[in-house]
Amino acid sequence: MYDFMFHVPTKIYFGRGQISHLAELSDFGQKALLVYGGGSIKRNGIYDEAIRILTHAGIEVVELSGVEPNPRIETVRRGVGLCAREGVDMVLAIGGGSTIDCAKVVAAGARYDGDPWDLVLDGSKAASALPIFSVLTLSATGSEMDAFAVISDMSKNEKWGTGAECMKPTMSVLDPSYTFSVSPKQTAAGTADMMSHTFESYFSMDEGAYVQKRLAEGLLGTMIHFGPIALAHPDDYDARANLMWAASHAINGLVSDGCSPAWCVHPMEHELSAFYDITHGEGLAILTPAWMEHVLDAQTAPLFAAYGCNVWGLSGVDDMKVAREAISRTRAFFVEAMHLPATLREVGITDEKNFEVMARKAADGCKGSFVALSQDDIVEIYRAAL
Amino acid sequence: MYDFMFHVPTKIYFGRGQISHLAELSDFGQKALLVYGGGSIKRNGIYDEAIRILTHAGIEVVELSGVEPNPRIETVRRGVGLCAREGVDMVLAIGGGSTIDCAKVVAAGARYDGDPWDLVLDGSKAASALPIFSVLTLSATGSEMDAFAVISDMSKNEKWGTGAECMKPTMSVLDPSYTFSVSPKQTAAGTADMMSHTFESYFSMDEGAYVQKRLAEGLLGTMIHFGPIALAHPDDYDARANLMWAASHAINGLVSDGCSPAWCVHPMEHELSAFYDITHGEGLAILTPAWMEHVLDAQTAPLFAAYGCNVWGLSGVDDMKVAREAISRTRAFFVEAMHLPATLREVGITDEKNFEVMARKAADGCKGSFVALSQDDIVEIYRAAL
Repeated sequence: MYDFMFHVPTKIYFGRGQISHLAELSDFGQKALLVYGGGSIKRNGIYDEAIRILTHAGIEVVELSGVEPNPRIETVRRGVGLCAREGVDMVLAIGGGSTIDCAKVVAAGARYDGDPWDLVLDGSKAASALPIFSVLTLSATGSEMDAFAVISDMSKNEKWGTGAECMKPTMSVLDPSYTFSVSPKQTAAGTADMMSHTFESYFSMDEGAYVQKRLAEGLLGTMIHFGPIALAHPDDYDARANLMWAASHAINGLVSDGCSPAWCVHPMEHELSAFYDITHGEGLAILTPAWMEHVLDAQTAPLFAAYGCNVWGLSGVDDMKVAREAISRTRAFFVEAMHLPATLREVGITDEKNFEVMARKAADGCKGSFVALSQDDIVEIYRAAL
Repeated sequence: MYDFMFHVPTKIYFGRGQISHLAELSDFGQKALLVYGGGSIKRNGIYDEAIRILTHAGIEVVELSGVEPNPRIETVRRGVGLCAREGVDMVLAIGGGSTIDCAKVVAAGARYDGDPWDLVLDGSKAASALPIFSVLTLSATGSEMDAFAVISDMSKNEKWGTGAECMKPTMSVLDPSYTFSVSPKQTAAGTADMMSHTFESYFSMDEGAYVQKRLAEGLLGTMIHFGPIALAHPDDYDARANLMWAASHAINGLVSDGCSPAWCVHPMEHELSAFYDITHGEGLAILTPAWMEHVLDAQTAPLFAAYGCNVWGLSGVDDMKVAREAISRTRAFFVEAMHLPATLREVGITDEKNFEVMARKAADGCKGSFVALSQDDIVEIYRAAL
């Protein structure tokens, strides 16, 4: 097991009606920047409820709305400007991972003397941030309980992940009933995203991180069990609750700290989103089986076989055979059980013209501890996924 | 899944040499109460290393030594007195769970206007505490990352658990190499303790807490895998590291929050320790299989069968049969693999004379969500374990 620092300071209020705890924000000041997306929180009543609670707690609200599904740096800059002009004390995101990611970089940008894109390119420049709070409405990214944010500059076809201690939320409200109205497509994409986070840590070559791997298998088993239930019964509370809580733990350090995660598939997918603005989770579902097949060899087969046995309930003495079956089950899960796209063509990427340049950019992020990927490897994976 | 608040604010430094981070205590003041036990930390060099780092960081040290394996309220009172007299800013425990438990109640007692036994009987009276730090030297109780403490008043044969938000450590150093010198007896007892913590949450009747149960199985599998390795190879780093990290997660809320844990075996064991001062983990190893057999019935069999399948790799369609085999494996693990005592007689409890009074006291704590135990039930379990 590698040395690590584990720190998950975010206080989580989990369950129905926990939004009432937003009243605690009054401990942190009198003015909050409320960050949200396209307005669904106005249609489903969460906005009104939050405003009622905040107003009752004596908190004035300034709004940053219209955060994009792949949040843009322009929106972050707009938020930072609002914080400065309005003298905001804290940032409250209500939405999914994109909204929370945007809020995090706004909160750090408000305490940074320079362009917030600097913080996207280099998280270590984010030394301090306004207190960050979130009300989660989509189970996927885990942003509600981690240090990370992903921001895009579409003018440059760039999408980068960043992270800093100061960007960990102080408190997050996780009410599974808020995800009852999440569409089948977003439910499936979110499930693929949380599974990919878990895979990125799980598939690493450090055998010493045993407990992390067993916990990761518990999360994966949960996601595989409840993903299809949430699709079939969108208002099944326990399905939504288990997906929500599993997603938070998939990326808060529980399954990664002590390993040396590879994070190969996310960097490859970020290029797809940066060039084609596709849904992140769909890109992950397409790339993941192609990546697994590409890196499967005699050395990695035992890990894929363990995955097959411990997550899919497979058995057998031939690691390679079990590994292939596990990958096949993974693809079938995404495509047949979750109705996610199987190929890049299905999301509108019909030719190879950007593969070389995307692969060159992604290759920098794919030097992890599992199987390092070269630019050529990544082009092959994109082609296999086409 | 039940509603819950999850909050694990403790910053963990995990790995070899992480004790150097004690220098960060200077952010919290200039004078620390150093709490430790019988002096083993002086023999193995941890004491000297800590003093060197603290001195270099400009921190003055006041000492509370001689904390007992089942820490006594008298020692807590002595610590509270030292804090007041010396103007201590923070409390640093170096040791196992008993030492950390003692330090926690001292830290809360230093901010409480009354006898610290009040805080043991009612944790809600602990509204504030001095900052608490720990350097862990024994994997067992999880006190390094939770809100709880267990304190005894042997003059009354009383041993009670208490807990409060303010008693969660601010930072803990987990260096697995510090546990290389832990004796086989304490290694085995510690493993039984962390397994019991996991069982207490795992065996609950709320089916909705699925992810918690899968995570608990991952912890149990880790403990069962590495317990015997740590006995056979005391300086196996990965064995010690996985046991240490699994123990912390067994009781920090990860596997309990969202369930409605029963906590039946700990209350029963606390009476054994309170009356006979036996080793806590040995008492748990003796009582656990007896308790499992006592509560096994048609209703609980599916849970014990799931435990058998997911932790012990059993299979079969007859839940009762798989459940019995799982309990049998559990007993065999404690006795044969970990060389723990199988009966109360082996730890010197040879008659039933205190069973009735112990059972009456324990019954108050055994009204959890799994199978509620009456005084008579508990007497039967004690008898079965005799």
